[in-house]
Amino acid sequence: MSYIDINCDLGESFGEFVIGQDDQILPHITSANVACGYHAGDHNVMAKTVKLAAVNNVKIGAHPGYADLSGFGRRVIDTTPDDIYHFTIYQISALQGFCHINKTSIHHVKPHGALYNVAAANREVAQAIANAVYDCNPNLVLYGLAGSELIKAGVERGLKVANEVFADRTYQADGTLTPRTHVNALIKDVESAVSQVINMVKNKVVKAVDGSLVPIQADTVCVHGDGEHALAFVLELNKCLEENDIKVHSL
Amino acid sequence: MSYIDINCDLGESFGEFVIGQDDQILPHITSANVACGYHAGDHNVMAKTVKLAAVNNVKIGAHPGYADLSGFGRRVIDTTPDDIYHFTIYQISALQGFCHINKTSIHHVKPHGALYNVAAANREVAQAIANAVYDCNPNLVLYGLAGSELIKAGVERGLKVANEVFADRTYQADGTLTPRTHVNALIKDVESAVSQVINMVKNKVVKAVDGSLVPIQADTVCVHGDGEHALAFVLELNKCLEENDIKVHSL
Amino acid sequence: MSYIDINCDLGESFGEFVIGQDDQILPHITSANVACGYHAGDHNVMAKTVKLAAVNNVKIGAHPGYADLSGFGRRVIDTTPDDIYHFTIYQISALQGFCHINKTSIHHVKPHGALYNVAAANREVAQAIANAVYDCNPNLVLYGLAGSELIKAGVERGLKVANEVFADRTYQADGTLTPRTHVNALIKDVESAVSQVINMVKNKVVKAVDGSLVPIQADTVCVHGDGEHALAFVLELNKCLEENDIKVHSL
Amino acid sequence: MSYIDINCDLGESFGEFVIGQDDQILPHITSANVACGYHAGDHNVMAKTVKLAAVNNVKIGAHPGYADLSGFGRRVIDTTPDDIYHFTIYQISALQGFCHINKTSIHHVKPHGALYNVAAANREVAQAIANAVYDCNPNLVLYGLAGSELIKAGVERGLKVANEVFADRTYQADGTLTPRTHVNALIKDVESAVSQVINMVKNKVVKAVDGSLVPIQADTVCVHGDGEHALAFVLELNKCLEENDIKVHSL
Repeated sequence: MSYIDINCDLGESFGEFVIGQDDQILPHITSANVACGYHAGDHNVMAKTVKLAAVNNVKIGAHPGYADLSGFGRRVIDTTPDDIYHFTIYQISALQGFCHINKTSIHHVKPHGALYNVAAANREVAQAIANAVYDCNPNLVLYGLAGSELIKAGVERGLKVANEVFADRTYQADGTLTPRTHVNALIKDVESAVSQVINMVKNKVVKAVDGSLVPIQADTVCVHGDGEHALAFVLELNKCLEENDIKVHSL
Repeated sequence: MSYIDINCDLGESFGEFVIGQDDQILPHITSANVACGYHAGDHNVMAKTVKLAAVNNVKIGAHPGYADLSGFGRRVIDTTPDDIYHFTIYQISALQGFCHINKTSIHHVKPHGALYNVAAANREVAQAIANAVYDCNPNLVLYGLAGSELIKAGVERGLKVANEVFADRTYQADGTLTPRTHVNALIKDVESAVSQVINMVKNKVVKAVDGSLVPIQADTVCVHGDGEHALAFVLELNKCLEENDIKVHSL
Repeated sequence: MSYIDINCDLGESFGEFVIGQDDQILPHITSANVACGYHAGDHNVMAKTVKLAAVNNVKIGAHPGYADLSGFGRRVIDTTPDDIYHFTIYQISALQGFCHINKTSIHHVKPHGALYNVAAANREVAQAIANAVYDCNPNLVLYGLAGSELIKAGVERGLKVANEVFADRTYQADGTLTPRTHVNALIKDVESAVSQVINMVKNKVVKAVDGSLVPIQADTVCVHGDGEHALAFVLELNKCLEENDIKVHSL
Repeated sequence: MSYIDINCDLGESFGEFVIGQDDQILPHITSANVACGYHAGDHNVMAKTVKLAAVNNVKIGAHPGYADLSGFGRRVIDTTPDDIYHFTIYQISALQGFCHINKTSIHHVKPHGALYNVAAANREVAQAIANAVYDCNPNLVLYGLAGSELIKAGVERGLKVANEVFADRTYQADGTLTPRTHVNALIKDVESAVSQVINMVKNKVVKAVDGSLVPIQADTVCVHGDGEHALAFVLELNKCLEENDIKVHSL
């Protein structure tokens, strides 16, 4: 039997600014990546999100990002590996506090947005993050783009890693995601998106935009927690995974 | 023999904005209250400050404040006890991360600025902070204004507490500090300031502005880490305490 | 014939955080209070909102608030009149820039949230705001709670003022709003809310919670731009005002 | 006779965080670039700085930067030209408010830090800034690195421009500054730094690090307002310029 983890970015509200339908999504995923106050989330939202994830028996991950609330962490800030190491320590540790008061603990770390993308390609940044995660707790699982520099840095550091794949993004022949600026970057059709996931899990390959078959390791698949179709998609994904004998569980 | 702890607020720089002479003050104090990023300090400053405190064998405390960088945490933000509970958890936990990577741990918590003042007088706020400290770690010591609501809340919650006294502030007949808006709020003369501390430690009283003698418990005395006379004062204080057979050590 | 202005707080989104249905509300109001980046809004949102308001021929007002994005400007920050004077200047002026590039200009200023409430009761704060508005441009109209300190300060400073009334809030015998903490603070029934407005405009009185009739000046009525019933309410209000021969137009 | 303007970045304090000796530097410069709250400065500091500059009869410029207080605007944030256009409008306009209440007006605009560097090399960013300046007020002077894309964009847009040169930075054969990461980037010797300026003004050339003579237009020279030698340097520079018959005045 095959397995996959379903992860989702949650706890992205900030004060009165509400994003996502966290309570609806949580029953249908196995890992929650919780924003830690730098690009989204605040201490009240973190407290609520951790509690809700714990109640739903969903694994809790820290979701550190650049300190860029107005850009939602989606813009690269050209900073040093040392700065990244320290803000990753800060964000993981802050979240750990809310896990502690809920008698649970952090299970994994997945960088957010632009930090995720930079860490996928930049070895120094990847190492800074892997070091921060390890230094916080060597038992944490590091989530990163499948086959990326972040995954390599995590393995080298001695961390457990989770290769992340995407249902609704196309891949290039080298295994990287097609940049969002390209016209064919997104898979908007639900059936195709779900099929891509099933193919990645069962056959360990993904069909790239040039038609080639690219080997890929799929430990966890990312779903969205925001947008009008988010819940429908995650329900469909769960149904199809079950029909294909792929068991959904955390790592 | 009598004892007293000397504490100082440190790690208050932020990015390129430098405040204090932390490296000069640290050898002469026994407890450092480290800003946690809300009213001052940032993740890089916290990392550096914790390391420096550990090297100097100074006890490390979290110094949580209102999220008010532009007001340096000196302005009351009219928020809920729940919000205060959560941001105290957040700030303590973030600092704990930097202690952990330096193989040390947090020893105490002292609220900063306006939060300190509100917690001294407001029972609900005091309880929110005491609960946050206890829930993070019941072994942490809670620092607060001697005899204040914060000290009471800490005792009620089962925490060890440290009654804090001030060298350069005058006291009123009810044991509270003379508000800074009053003309006689500050003791600017070094000798008088030091004498006040020695009197509080040795005789457990302080002479109030009306001339009355007020009983006071002095577990820790606050010194400043900023300003041109900061280092000179702490050196003088240490010298006079020693001459009066008062041993300076952490709680 | 009677007249009233309908104003609404708009431009409250921030980066990816979306609040309100500004484009739907704008055709049905006559004054837009635009957030200026301190409690909500950002430079991109301000640009878009000013453009949209200009296209809809709606008067543009600055909506300055406390620098408190996480509290949405709804929490009092205990700061000085000087600070309030300066941040009001800053926020009005920043908005004026976006009006200028859209070949329009600011028409009015209405403080937001906690600042509005403090200015309604605190004479010093009211004067600081009135001075800031006047110093920016003596032709601006100052919006404030009907009969409040802010209105008085505006009149004293020589500004045109707009007495603001609320459709969905109850009043007390002294003409102030019933605090939100009271059980009967809100009027949830649309018909009653609309009737209250019509009564205030036509008869210049409002029925207080104790049954007494309180004289009130209604120059402008505040409607909400957020929430599922916001659009329906403003449509109903416009319809009923028209049926009662009350013309809706800006001041 | 030759002329040069001396400009300095001022108003970089933030709340309790003090940077620079603005009051000491101001009597010896002709243009002040005032931080506008995004990378440094706040509304109170802006008010004070504008007043002080006006009293000293120094031309006031807006000094817009990336919204990055923790990085002091020295880190590139990978954002869009539209975003840069809007935040430049916002910052210039906010400063204009403080000029207005002091019965003066903005004279020029100089981007800060990383934004200055990006604008020097990136045509799209340069145009976004030039457009923002022009749209705010076509009479403003645009300050940029001598011969850079920003200067070109300003000229194309129809703005007056000021080619800025540096006393304490070395130049490369192509007229750009030697990156700070290079060992020979800085000129630490006061005499050499002053000589470089005099050579640039009188002979319109600068000796590059490879020994070649590079043509350069020097309309304004940047001096620092922070650091222990800042005042001494600006005094020496003024003295030597006078001795060399170079008149210091604003553009």
